[in-house]
Amino acid sequence: MMLVLRCGRAVVRRGSSWCVLTALALLVTLPRPVVAAGDPLPSWKDTAPKKAIAEFVSRVTNRGSSDFVAPEARIAAFDNDGTLWAEQPMYFQMLFAIDRVKELAPQHPEWKSQEPFKNLLAGNTREFLAGGEKSVQAALAVSHAGMTTDEFVDTAKNWLRTAKHPKTGQPYTRMVYQPMLELLAYLRANGFKTYIVSGGGVEFMRAFAEEAYGIPPEQVIGSSGKLKYEVRDGKPVLVKQPAVQMVDDREGKAISIQTIIGRRPIAAFGNSDGDQQMLEWTTAGPGARLAVLIHHDDAAREWAYDRKSPIGSLDKALDEANAKGWTVVSMRGDWKTVFPK
Amino acid sequence: MMLVLRCGRAVVRRGSSWCVLTALALLVTLPRPVVAAGDPLPSWKDTAPKKAIAEFVSRVTNRGSSDFVAPEARIAAFDNDGTLWAEQPMYFQMLFAIDRVKELAPQHPEWKSQEPFKNLLAGNTREFLAGGEKSVQAALAVSHAGMTTDEFVDTAKNWLRTAKHPKTGQPYTRMVYQPMLELLAYLRANGFKTYIVSGGGVEFMRAFAEEAYGIPPEQVIGSSGKLKYEVRDGKPVLVKQPAVQMVDDREGKAISIQTIIGRRPIAAFGNSDGDQQMLEWTTAGPGARLAVLIHHDDAAREWAYDRKSPIGSLDKALDEANAKGWTVVSMRGDWKTVFPK
Repeated sequence: MMLVLRCGRAVVRRGSSWCVLTALALLVTLPRPVVAAGDPLPSWKDTAPKKAIAEFVSRVTNRGSSDFVAPEARIAAFDNDGTLWAEQPMYFQMLFAIDRVKELAPQHPEWKSQEPFKNLLAGNTREFLAGGEKSVQAALAVSHAGMTTDEFVDTAKNWLRTAKHPKTGQPYTRMVYQPMLELLAYLRANGFKTYIVSGGGVEFMRAFAEEAYGIPPEQVIGSSGKLKYEVRDGKPVLVKQPAVQMVDDREGKAISIQTIIGRRPIAAFGNSDGDQQMLEWTTAGPGARLAVLIHHDDAAREWAYDRKSPIGSLDKALDEANAKGWTVVSMRGDWKTVFPK
Repeated sequence: MMLVLRCGRAVVRRGSSWCVLTALALLVTLPRPVVAAGDPLPSWKDTAPKKAIAEFVSRVTNRGSSDFVAPEARIAAFDNDGTLWAEQPMYFQMLFAIDRVKELAPQHPEWKSQEPFKNLLAGNTREFLAGGEKSVQAALAVSHAGMTTDEFVDTAKNWLRTAKHPKTGQPYTRMVYQPMLELLAYLRANGFKTYIVSGGGVEFMRAFAEEAYGIPPEQVIGSSGKLKYEVRDGKPVLVKQPAVQMVDDREGKAISIQTIIGRRPIAAFGNSDGDQQMLEWTTAGPGARLAVLIHHDDAAREWAYDRKSPIGSLDKALDEANAKGWTVVSMRGDWKTVFPK
């Protein structure tokens, strides 16, 4: 507004609106300010990570900077589980799968005597999980496949609306991290396109990503199952198959970024070894780069786990972060709040 | 500008720039006009397809219309080969593969006696193509795999810069359709997000899509090969593998739209049976929908082919278009010009 006020009198004197027009045109075309009114990251303490983020944003958005990046290339990639929302005691999508298996059980009496369903239905979660990848895949297959994509979205949305987290009693979509919501908004206000790049299922994440994070479906990248095109009553449907199309984890994250976005992100945010290659791929490009790991070290407000956790293990990526100077965010030390109030 | 001029004197009299400010704010926030100055589709004759397109755009962009679609849901999907650029005497990417095999031949003396390379190198294109999918895949594998994604883009860009079409003598990127360039721009001016959804290779198309069509990498969807993540000299690279990850053709187009965009397009443009399912999927959604097939019936200015062509066969999709009232564009009858001048 300063520009307008400064030449306000000239407008009156010369009977011309040219000055105001020019000033306004300038206001409209000038890049939006890096920092909006007030602190755009109020839930972040004034510690090193907040400074690193602000400095990076300033460097890539300042036209005078040698690290300036055109808005269309300002791609930021975010892992979801453990980075944007919580992931304990197990991935929320797995809790959805378990609830779904229970719901479908009356139609499948054979599951009572058939593993991994027997353990799962009996509530022996530890024994179920001891079956590893094979058990998890079996539960995902029966809970996610067989429906059309539209039916699946309805099912997932309904669960997200009604289910409660076993420890906090909160709906899962309230277990998103407030500081990360602010970060997403801050980056978007600075011209960034924010993507989710997660091992979670793409259709599952799209059921809440727009409402929870402001991230539209086309900016959600995840693991995906095979789909089958069928025409039912003259109308095409896509039916979810019990087979994996793409696993968007570890190396798969760099691969799906290349295949789907086709541009290398300039900033990436993760929390586990599953994000290591995404951060490597992001930081290997030229110019200013930002790689951030969220470290779950806050047993009081969230959970504390890292190297030896069966879920969201952060081990090799933490070593690489320390060696390469990636930004490590301590939930305990760097965040004023964790969940939205 | 009218709004500003009308209240110009009031500014002088009242010594306030409020009126200009308000008018300008209005100008900035008002939706852009549906039709830009002049005819936005000058290469289209005033025949039925142009009217169908304009009417559709008006319906989905007019806030008063019951068919109004919010800008973020204005997704338009375009096939590439035969829809945005030519595809005869064979897909241009195949001509690239052939040139590449010739270039690599000195390093592969065994190809002289090994099909399909023997026929290909001897210029027996018909015999080579008689080998069908297997021959094509073999040529694509040796010409596209083994490189990093960065090396491949350089190779493809270099070929696109230097290679000439065997019939027209033009660079391939000059064999894009002028009416379709206007259509892409017209849709984007009306808030549409224009996507390529093509059977062509995603990395190959991205090598020219932004410059030729104004379509950024993240809006290019195509067939893709498997990639392998490797760290070379401490830097990660993605190496193209001789194996298919996804075939973006026929049913695959609806599937990749769902998996990658996650929204159903409201408009789709194709030219062959490979686009049939994309048009079915697009038109099966609620509200106003636009399905368009480009019919190659212009032997004088381009090529004339449809039901029996080995490349870009348009047979079942043409029957469905006639039955369902999809828009069929006659290159001869509906376009004033075909290629850019």
